[in-house]
Amino acid sequence: MINQINVGYGKTRSVIRELFEYGKKRKAEIGEDNVYDFSLGNPSVPAPEEVTDALIKLVIEEDAVALHGYTSAQGDLSVRRAVADDLNSRFSTALSADCIYMTCGAAASVCITLNALLNKGDEVITFAPFFPEYTVFTANAGGTLKAVETDPKTFLPDIAKFSVALGEKTKAVIINSPNNPSGVVYGEEVIKELCKVLAEHEKKTGNRVFIISDEPYRELVFGGIYVPFIMNYYADSIVCYSFSKSLSLPGERIGYIAVNNRMPDWTEIYAGICGAGRAMGYVCAPALFQQLVKRVLGKTSDISVYESNRNILCEALREYGYEVVQPDGAFYLFVKSLEEHAAAFAERAKKYELLIVPADSFGVKGYVRIAYCVSPQMIKKSLPAFKKLAESYKK
Amino acid sequence: MINQINVGYGKTRSVIRELFEYGKKRKAEIGEDNVYDFSLGNPSVPAPEEVTDALIKLVIEEDAVALHGYTSAQGDLSVRRAVADDLNSRFSTALSADCIYMTCGAAASVCITLNALLNKGDEVITFAPFFPEYTVFTANAGGTLKAVETDPKTFLPDIAKFSVALGEKTKAVIINSPNNPSGVVYGEEVIKELCKVLAEHEKKTGNRVFIISDEPYRELVFGGIYVPFIMNYYADSIVCYSFSKSLSLPGERIGYIAVNNRMPDWTEIYAGICGAGRAMGYVCAPALFQQLVKRVLGKTSDISVYESNRNILCEALREYGYEVVQPDGAFYLFVKSLEEHAAAFAERAKKYELLIVPADSFGVKGYVRIAYCVSPQMIKKSLPAFKKLAESYKK
Repeated sequence: MINQINVGYGKTRSVIRELFEYGKKRKAEIGEDNVYDFSLGNPSVPAPEEVTDALIKLVIEEDAVALHGYTSAQGDLSVRRAVADDLNSRFSTALSADCIYMTCGAAASVCITLNALLNKGDEVITFAPFFPEYTVFTANAGGTLKAVETDPKTFLPDIAKFSVALGEKTKAVIINSPNNPSGVVYGEEVIKELCKVLAEHEKKTGNRVFIISDEPYRELVFGGIYVPFIMNYYADSIVCYSFSKSLSLPGERIGYIAVNNRMPDWTEIYAGICGAGRAMGYVCAPALFQQLVKRVLGKTSDISVYESNRNILCEALREYGYEVVQPDGAFYLFVKSLEEHAAAFAERAKKYELLIVPADSFGVKGYVRIAYCVSPQMIKKSLPAFKKLAESYKK
Repeated sequence: MINQINVGYGKTRSVIRELFEYGKKRKAEIGEDNVYDFSLGNPSVPAPEEVTDALIKLVIEEDAVALHGYTSAQGDLSVRRAVADDLNSRFSTALSADCIYMTCGAAASVCITLNALLNKGDEVITFAPFFPEYTVFTANAGGTLKAVETDPKTFLPDIAKFSVALGEKTKAVIINSPNNPSGVVYGEEVIKELCKVLAEHEKKTGNRVFIISDEPYRELVFGGIYVPFIMNYYADSIVCYSFSKSLSLPGERIGYIAVNNRMPDWTEIYAGICGAGRAMGYVCAPALFQQLVKRVLGKTSDISVYESNRNILCEALREYGYEVVQPDGAFYLFVKSLEEHAAAFAERAKKYELLIVPADSFGVKGYVRIAYCVSPQMIKKSLPAFKKLAESYKK
């Protein structure tokens, strides 16, 4: 008998991946442009020109042996230094290269961090709705994920419920702002409240709780909204980042973990991260893309497309009668299902070639996630389908 | 208290990585050319021209969104089809794309496979000397690695001892041919004997044991020697491959797992692999390099360099009084230490700027590993140092 937990994970897939695969088949049947695929956070805006230019330059000019060779397990030193400098200049931190561990993207960042921190039986808290893979990642690290409710009007954490949820076994809290799937951004007020509760909990019980800030959408915010950088508010914090969304490179698997050196024992935490990465077979992050991100730090894809998509979609959906909380960041819209069961709603949406993800596995029933990181043409073309879907419930 | 096992893995590092880091510092002190760094299997032969050409062509010609986007978790379908076709044409198998799971290199391949197969408390057998990270990878998957001795004259498995080592808890056997660190290739005779023992064990006890064939060095063999393809000898087999060594791309983390579809339940095993990869945060293998390997399947770096290195080094070392078993493949030489403790020997070698890995962690005491995948110039320049090291023991 092989490991049945992993067979289960392999057979069920995530709801998102399931729909993504369905979409691929459906597109082959009726044509790419006729399927309104809002299933996956696969950016439609191409990587900025600087990425393509830098890639070509690297491959042409650099010595192939050095370029494609192993880096240190934690990442090339010059790359880590550049990442630390970039963070320091933007967020007034004082990180060194030794705080940075380059990874194969955000999922790897989160998994490695969880494996570094957790002992068997530990609990991890997050706020619903949340990225459903957190459940799988936490379980694989020997822990249990506990979701705390948010205010359904804002999707911001319910601080009172958070306070009650904290216990002896709580090892970490995952925050994800801008949020997948709600697009909500945690402002300074919310962050301060969360940190205050954790500080009180530690004072009262002696239990230290880490904040893991999963922030692949950090740069994807609209209207110049401020995203607080967790390290400046809470010492026991670890930032998990990916360049997937900001540079439109989700398939290339490149990101990092940044360990807050305001922790007295940060080198111990960093060692745990190195060890977890090693034990899970992450030898080093892809070498060419380590060099690539070093050369384009601070650049992003054209994010204005997502803002415009959001505006068009929010306005239209509200007009058709959908209940929508307008997001400030990321490229997801969290929309109330037009019937009790989101899965049935998403299934009906398929009839109109709309691929939207039922959000039960995101920890909130009765909602769907719309990943609007598609082309503006696709947004416009999809609107009649959303309209028909809404009308189908009015008959 | 964070996870102390992973802190331990992070603090100790592997002996190889430790020496690699020492080498980087030493080179900065006395110059790249003055350190004879035989620590790491980092190929010195550049990737073939076809790799550079194909990379540039892909980046220039392909649509950036598609090129750098997520692939299916198991890998792009056309890539998997090409890999299956390539294996079929070379080894007369009948694999489909659905037998192939693209990975971030060989370590990921092995870790994912172990996590797919093992339940807590299972045992995995391998043959000493072996790649020391197998111990860490197996432990992380909840199992225990058990090393079976080989014949010190040939480093081929001791079949009698293997037969005794098999037990109720044995879930898998890892074979690694061409072998790291001995360079030995398991011929057809050996493979047949191993398979026979496993078949008898299954018949007698009902225990099914998988063979995991870790073969990143498959193409690195000299004198046209034949490397049997495990799937043709044993149904319950899974092949773990990496393009790191054959294409000199170790930093890029690209490889695959091939599941033998001669197993009646191969789709179940494949699901377990998908699930394990998912739970460990391996979202997909790097997308650009998936497309790259598809375009250069069958190509390799100039392997003749390694053969020539081997010949020069073996001849010289024997002349200086070292005891060497000449390897048929990979790019490692397993040499008897000139004193009882290999660690002390490797430490003394550092005085002559020779970085060689003490092999205690490879499961055999009193040996060192020399990774001769360096430049021919480096081999020649290092010979006087090897000579002086040997002479230092004669005084």
